[in-house]
Amino acid sequence: MNVKEVEKLLNDVKNGETTVNKALEVLKNFPYTDLGFAKIDHHREMRTGYPEIIYCAGKSVEQVKEIVKVMSERENNVIGTRANQEMYEAVLNIIPTAVYYPMGRIISVQKKKPETPESSIAVITAGTSDMPVAEEAAITAELLGNKVLRIYDAGVAGIHRLVDKLPEIRNCRVVIVIAGMEGALASVVGGLIDKPVIAVPTSVGYGANFGGISALLAMLTSCSTGVTVVNIDNGFGAGFAASMINKMA
Amino acid sequence: MNVKEVEKLLNDVKNGETTVNKALEVLKNFPYTDLGFAKIDHHREMRTGYPEIIYCAGKSVEQVKEIVKVMSERENNVIGTRANQEMYEAVLNIIPTAVYYPMGRIISVQKKKPETPESSIAVITAGTSDMPVAEEAAITAELLGNKVLRIYDAGVAGIHRLVDKLPEIRNCRVVIVIAGMEGALASVVGGLIDKPVIAVPTSVGYGANFGGISALLAMLTSCSTGVTVVNIDNGFGAGFAASMINKMA
Amino acid sequence: MNVKEVEKLLNDVKNGETTVNKALEVLKNFPYTDLGFAKIDHHREMRTGYPEIIYCAGKSVEQVKEIVKVMSERENNVIGTRANQEMYEAVLNIIPTAVYYPMGRIISVQKKKPETPESSIAVITAGTSDMPVAEEAAITAELLGNKVLRIYDAGVAGIHRLVDKLPEIRNCRVVIVIAGMEGALASVVGGLIDKPVIAVPTSVGYGANFGGISALLAMLTSCSTGVTVVNIDNGFGAGFAASMINKMA
Amino acid sequence: MNVKEVEKLLNDVKNGETTVNKALEVLKNFPYTDLGFAKIDHHREMRTGYPEIIYCAGKSVEQVKEIVKVMSERENNVIGTRANQEMYEAVLNIIPTAVYYPMGRIISVQKKKPETPESSIAVITAGTSDMPVAEEAAITAELLGNKVLRIYDAGVAGIHRLVDKLPEIRNCRVVIVIAGMEGALASVVGGLIDKPVIAVPTSVGYGANFGGISALLAMLTSCSTGVTVVNIDNGFGAGFAASMINKMA
Amino acid sequence: MNVKEVEKLLNDVKNGETTVNKALEVLKNFPYTDLGFAKIDHHREMRTGYPEIIYCAGKSVEQVKEIVKVMSERENNVIGTRANQEMYEAVLNIIPTAVYYPMGRIISVQKKKPETPESSIAVITAGTSDMPVAEEAAITAELLGNKVLRIYDAGVAGIHRLVDKLPEIRNCRVVIVIAGMEGALASVVGGLIDKPVIAVPTSVGYGANFGGISALLAMLTSCSTGVTVVNIDNGFGAGFAASMINKMA
Amino acid sequence: MNVKEVEKLLNDVKNGETTVNKALEVLKNFPYTDLGFAKIDHHREMRTGYPEIIYCAGKSVEQVKEIVKVMSERENNVIGTRANQEMYEAVLNIIPTAVYYPMGRIISVQKKKPETPESSIAVITAGTSDMPVAEEAAITAELLGNKVLRIYDAGVAGIHRLVDKLPEIRNCRVVIVIAGMEGALASVVGGLIDKPVIAVPTSVGYGANFGGISALLAMLTSCSTGVTVVNIDNGFGAGFAASMINKMA
Amino acid sequence: MNVKEVEKLLNDVKNGETTVNKALEVLKNFPYTDLGFAKIDHHREMRTGYPEIIYCAGKSVEQVKEIVKVMSERENNVIGTRANQEMYEAVLNIIPTAVYYPMGRIISVQKKKPETPESSIAVITAGTSDMPVAEEAAITAELLGNKVLRIYDAGVAGIHRLVDKLPEIRNCRVVIVIAGMEGALASVVGGLIDKPVIAVPTSVGYGANFGGISALLAMLTSCSTGVTVVNIDNGFGAGFAASMINKMA
Amino acid sequence: MNVKEVEKLLNDVKNGETTVNKALEVLKNFPYTDLGFAKIDHHREMRTGYPEIIYCAGKSVEQVKEIVKVMSERENNVIGTRANQEMYEAVLNIIPTAVYYPMGRIISVQKKKPETPESSIAVITAGTSDMPVAEEAAITAELLGNKVLRIYDAGVAGIHRLVDKLPEIRNCRVVIVIAGMEGALASVVGGLIDKPVIAVPTSVGYGANFGGISALLAMLTSCSTGVTVVNIDNGFGAGFAASMINKMA
Repeated sequence: MNVKEVEKLLNDVKNGETTVNKALEVLKNFPYTDLGFAKIDHHREMRTGYPEIIYCAGKSVEQVKEIVKVMSERENNVIGTRANQEMYEAVLNIIPTAVYYPMGRIISVQKKKPETPESSIAVITAGTSDMPVAEEAAITAELLGNKVLRIYDAGVAGIHRLVDKLPEIRNCRVVIVIAGMEGALASVVGGLIDKPVIAVPTSVGYGANFGGISALLAMLTSCSTGVTVVNIDNGFGAGFAASMINKMA
Repeated sequence: MNVKEVEKLLNDVKNGETTVNKALEVLKNFPYTDLGFAKIDHHREMRTGYPEIIYCAGKSVEQVKEIVKVMSERENNVIGTRANQEMYEAVLNIIPTAVYYPMGRIISVQKKKPETPESSIAVITAGTSDMPVAEEAAITAELLGNKVLRIYDAGVAGIHRLVDKLPEIRNCRVVIVIAGMEGALASVVGGLIDKPVIAVPTSVGYGANFGGISALLAMLTSCSTGVTVVNIDNGFGAGFAASMINKMA
Repeated sequence: MNVKEVEKLLNDVKNGETTVNKALEVLKNFPYTDLGFAKIDHHREMRTGYPEIIYCAGKSVEQVKEIVKVMSERENNVIGTRANQEMYEAVLNIIPTAVYYPMGRIISVQKKKPETPESSIAVITAGTSDMPVAEEAAITAELLGNKVLRIYDAGVAGIHRLVDKLPEIRNCRVVIVIAGMEGALASVVGGLIDKPVIAVPTSVGYGANFGGISALLAMLTSCSTGVTVVNIDNGFGAGFAASMINKMA
Repeated sequence: MNVKEVEKLLNDVKNGETTVNKALEVLKNFPYTDLGFAKIDHHREMRTGYPEIIYCAGKSVEQVKEIVKVMSERENNVIGTRANQEMYEAVLNIIPTAVYYPMGRIISVQKKKPETPESSIAVITAGTSDMPVAEEAAITAELLGNKVLRIYDAGVAGIHRLVDKLPEIRNCRVVIVIAGMEGALASVVGGLIDKPVIAVPTSVGYGANFGGISALLAMLTSCSTGVTVVNIDNGFGAGFAASMINKMA
Repeated sequence: MNVKEVEKLLNDVKNGETTVNKALEVLKNFPYTDLGFAKIDHHREMRTGYPEIIYCAGKSVEQVKEIVKVMSERENNVIGTRANQEMYEAVLNIIPTAVYYPMGRIISVQKKKPETPESSIAVITAGTSDMPVAEEAAITAELLGNKVLRIYDAGVAGIHRLVDKLPEIRNCRVVIVIAGMEGALASVVGGLIDKPVIAVPTSVGYGANFGGISALLAMLTSCSTGVTVVNIDNGFGAGFAASMINKMA
Repeated sequence: MNVKEVEKLLNDVKNGETTVNKALEVLKNFPYTDLGFAKIDHHREMRTGYPEIIYCAGKSVEQVKEIVKVMSERENNVIGTRANQEMYEAVLNIIPTAVYYPMGRIISVQKKKPETPESSIAVITAGTSDMPVAEEAAITAELLGNKVLRIYDAGVAGIHRLVDKLPEIRNCRVVIVIAGMEGALASVVGGLIDKPVIAVPTSVGYGANFGGISALLAMLTSCSTGVTVVNIDNGFGAGFAASMINKMA
Repeated sequence: MNVKEVEKLLNDVKNGETTVNKALEVLKNFPYTDLGFAKIDHHREMRTGYPEIIYCAGKSVEQVKEIVKVMSERENNVIGTRANQEMYEAVLNIIPTAVYYPMGRIISVQKKKPETPESSIAVITAGTSDMPVAEEAAITAELLGNKVLRIYDAGVAGIHRLVDKLPEIRNCRVVIVIAGMEGALASVVGGLIDKPVIAVPTSVGYGANFGGISALLAMLTSCSTGVTVVNIDNGFGAGFAASMINKMA
Repeated sequence: MNVKEVEKLLNDVKNGETTVNKALEVLKNFPYTDLGFAKIDHHREMRTGYPEIIYCAGKSVEQVKEIVKVMSERENNVIGTRANQEMYEAVLNIIPTAVYYPMGRIISVQKKKPETPESSIAVITAGTSDMPVAEEAAITAELLGNKVLRIYDAGVAGIHRLVDKLPEIRNCRVVIVIAGMEGALASVVGGLIDKPVIAVPTSVGYGANFGGISALLAMLTSCSTGVTVVNIDNGFGAGFAASMINKMA
């Protein structure tokens, strides 16, 4: 709500075009439902063009169910990330159209179809073990209304597997690169293509991987330009940011 | 160079439309000048639409001068980052049109004007001390052909200074947020606007700042969606990635 | 026991107003019950105005039961933190008035009502997942005799949820801010109000959260003045320190 | 500015008791002077009861001078922390009443005397080498209008030096404990007195001190209740928070 | 595929000695089978002289079975590392000749006997607890066609146990040293023999071992020349690199 | 075996007082039994005056049983640390006199009574939760032939509990201090007594304790002289080193 | 001051054998001179048998001079560690008998000769670069009244240099081992001799040495029994602790 | 010296073929010159086939000169690493044939030409800034008698620069890969060639490079087989280990 809108509102009050109470209601602004343990932000979708997202980890099954219920009553699309099977079943009891993606650990309730641009998002992984994070990214992007090109197990130890797919990747508008271990794939992809690369370090590996630190540091210090990074294992964050870029007018 | 192009080239050889030597020249592909201590990649600008970038830190004055010289002979635009005054003066001796931006530590040699889109990039800092990193980002973006909106010293300890600028920020296509200390500004901006946010942690601070780790971790774990992160103090990387997004058709 | 009191005691001995043995008993000072595995400090409540606190984690069920028993025999209030259900049931067997708060993991035995000041303590969390830590803080504060205002799920990604509550928060005498992830909420609250803020980083999050380090560092490097920090997930410590400040004459 | 105030303002507009333009001016709210490189918040002192603070490290001498100048023109008290001699001399040129505290690295411009409560703040250090941080805390507290009791070099290796001062310390309303190395002093003081303790870890030491991490972790994990912690070497933050508590009605 | 080979291929096309399609096939180069979740590289063995290796950790039982099946159909030797009993049983169902080494956690399918040089590889451990990593190294080396000398529990706390074996160790061509805790054995062995030493830090230990960091850092900073290091617990990597060196012509 | 002994041996050979074979046997030196997975050093007790110690963690039950069996056949005292109940039962099957200390996790087989000096070792803990580590230290010291004074739960938050015991502690020859959290107890004890202090950090605590790092760093940076440190939770190491000092002639 | 002494003092007061004022003076106990910036503990030498030690780093030249002056006026021996040449010269101006050891960075003022036992302390270094730390340890031990055997540059990369010196080392009562890099020497020495080993990690090295962390962790996790550790580069602490053990009756 | 040699020596003594004194001299074994601050190992070259190496960092100019002098008197080749210009000039004064390599910081005194095999060692860097480390590796390898192929500035951001050199690299017997930042080059080279790869992380970079940690972790977790790692910036160690492998019969 910027200064111009406030000026207009004040003039409306002065001119009797709106009442003090109505103006107050507007100025109180962004309404939300307060569940006590969670404040649900119904106007968010209108403001941001995206559905409200629930980060389910650390919430009880009961809390997840309650939040999804209140949200979907407003005819919003709902995405629940890091959700387990038990949470999904609780939601399914009250919303029979809810869908669960087990590898990506996502619950989806879709009330309206999002607009989908022509261009695609590429999701590339270094190894097979990076797939759960990749699926979180890919499904997030799809639910937000994007076409996704999946290229899995294309790590730098056998770089010809990547080179073979370059033409397809270059047709995408933005690329998500997902790798654990030494995370070199982000630099290699960033050096070969001229598109924004969102790198996701994964906790895949052992020893000096230190739960994803090796890949995280490698991606942050990538010598390839155009690479930005999200949190370890944060497939959702990468999918969301990639969607923002891909859906740009 | 994809399979189709190779197929065409082979057919051209077969049909006598090109010679073995010419085809060989093409297949040898991406030419570069080898200075011994550096390999300069002349086709990069054609491939990527961007000039070659020299990371000057860790190179000798003599090396920087030599690399800039070879590059600018090919009529490419050249950007040298992390350059000091002495490097600039060495370059100036041989290229009188070279420009130096002391706060952003950038040497620029501009041979042709880049295309500039209508939309802008916002560069926001939490404090005055973050300005050198911000200038590196802003000047990089400008040299690559972008309009930049600078908003400096708008940290969360006095959040009304940011709120006041929100309408202008919302008019930009992509936002760079630069903060040291606790790095909270990235999350706050990410929660208020619906645009990609590229967060740059800075090493500004002391003690538990640990050379920028506090801001880096805060930005990586931001609860706001649409935030991606680059290396500590990497203003250049943020400016480059923001330019990629801003210049998207 | 300060110099004046010792002087008086010596004069009492000299004047025969007390015996050597009695004085010795006093000088031996702070008595405690020695259970072998634990030394219980009965005079602590008199010295500090607060009940003895038992940190139950790392103690056996049998040890917890024994310590609570000895303490409550002296008519002191007892608080057991980080207690599990099994410990509570063992205590309940011998003290039927014992109460258990499962979300805050606290056992309480209340023998006398603490004095309660007019002013309140605000307990604010960034997310729903921070609630167990928040409840540990809130219940600690209440058991020590404070009124508590709970505001949960008011993180910076939707900062209007916080702004809406500012008038209530400003009425409190001290504020506890609890956040995981990037911990930005402490800085934002600290910048908006003029009261001591006690920040509690939580281990909520994943990846670069590193078990709470991201929020801890962010809170320690907060650019907002008046913010002090306690250990990761240490709701009890925040509740106790806030009570000290709130109950100040 | 809370909902009630906005309601009143809107009624004033409606009733013609104020003009749209005046109301707009109020709603634009918290004014500040924008220097380009810094945004100075003139209403902060009114809102928070404290002067604006300038963190001078990382700013140029010219920037510090300019910010102090604009601030002091509004008859506010100004405190510049982490200031060096050169910054002070630049300020002195334009404000002859400016004072510099070299050990605490603070520039002060005092336009009006702050109110000073009866109660004191104790500032205790473990060693002589912790004195610069202690002076930053003590002078901050004094400039904000507090009486300060300084007790330096009272570390736990000779704990009788501390015990001797306990009666004086117990007369203070809040205690700042400053220690490097193993930081044990905070726990010992916290165990002996019944007042809020603000612990400041210092970077004093070598080896496994790791620039203050040893003391920081020790203070965060203190087994004494009522201890909260600020950033390594952050004497200013401790002095400011202690002042907030000491000046409470 | 180097420039000369491409030149020859182009001449062959020109001269009709090969067809465009055949040349294209060659240039498409390194073929692989794409399983969607994994890309299997069949020419790798020809290129590198070694079988394809499957890192089984993080893959589902179904994925491991599928990958082994496709690989062994091409008559390649297959090695699966970090495999558990359940994975082995799934493989055994379809390939009855598969062998499992439980201590080294390796599945082996051997279709042809590798060539074995005269010289041996020594595998030395500091303690009994390092044996699982040692067996991973030893069995890897044996499956790749090497003779292995095992010397277990020869740590520096009883250095005569090592000295006694020196003549045998000196007869080997390359030495793998495996140790947790302080990892001193690598330096001691490196100082006593004149052969390449590959050091494997293990996560054996507790406390300041930090999951293998103590041994890792010790081995990286070894003052003995000729010592190189692999990841914590990476017995496979050591066995593979040692085999490369031992099988050198 | 020093130069003089070798000289004598050579003279014996020359003079026919011993045979080449016998001398060779001596020079082959320190014999041990090689079990393949472990090398047992029978002469160690003679060389060092202490029994052989088995670190049981990371060994299989079968391995522990086999090692204890071979050792005890030579009439040596055997101590197994970090042993669980199952290991003990396997040992008990073959050595009915074996004893198990569950809190200290130690298996003991005592074939001969060690000499015990008059002086004692004090074992002091900060909290009740440190007891398992303390018992490992105390029982180790007792099995090696020392009298032990146990003082548990005497942390610095209630320092009078420690002061009360000072006379007893000062009568000991060496002091072991065991503490988690902030580890301040080692510094306080080191400042009050004039005896060697061996500090054992424990992993007791949470959050910024980081598995014992807080106490470890605090103890390493202790400002009290005469404090040395062993690994986190290494009660055995402290007990063994204290015994060495206490049993000194 | 134990309970018995207090009892006697009280009886003296009662019986008129001492006055209240005199008793009070005694109970005020441990006197010290308060310089404001430092509290000098004159009774320490009597209590502990050792001179007061000044840690000079972080103190001003003026402060060091003042502290040494007050101390030496009481005829105590004074040791100043981490002292530079400038500090020494300031002290020399007022105390012409002061001595400076530049490699060990120690100032010594010796007023009385300490008693020296027959037995020696061995100080062993891995490399030549560890000598400054070794000299700090050796000179500390000598000034406290011990004979010292220096063995420098005996690292494990050429272990025969150590073995050659074993007979001499075994004649010492306690051994200090000083090493940077991988710190393996402590384990090797600990495995070869039956005496307490005090290990000093040094910051000598680069890269993964991380300022001494590699050696520190290695020494803490040493598999040799009887090894305890002091802070990185803390030669003084090792010399002091070794002296305590060597001078034991 | 193994058992057989001792047996023979003893028989020689018995048979009078050698005297007790001569045998003793042999058994005293590996002779060295003791300079007090350094023990020089003259037989090392005979034992290991390599010259003695002096790590000059942390040694005084005087010490370096003295050690080089003693060594070169025995007609050994001498290599001094991490040497500065001043050290070289001191050496040059006494040994006019000494050579200095400023970029690699190496002093060389060559008394005899080492044997040089046909095969080469490749030294590849990611960037120009990695050259000092690369030169340390390359010159070390050359001084030890190896041919070196230098390929500098071939990082993964422009991977065609590397691909172009693959045929030459594949002709080498062992490859050293040197990279800072994200260290991806080691994985890429390891995936393209079938030779041992020794990876050297460098401290080149800033921010999340953390002095070389990013490259170190990336190289340790490399998914390419056959890669082993040395310490950050340890060009010498890589050159030495590569020489060992290259000179293998």
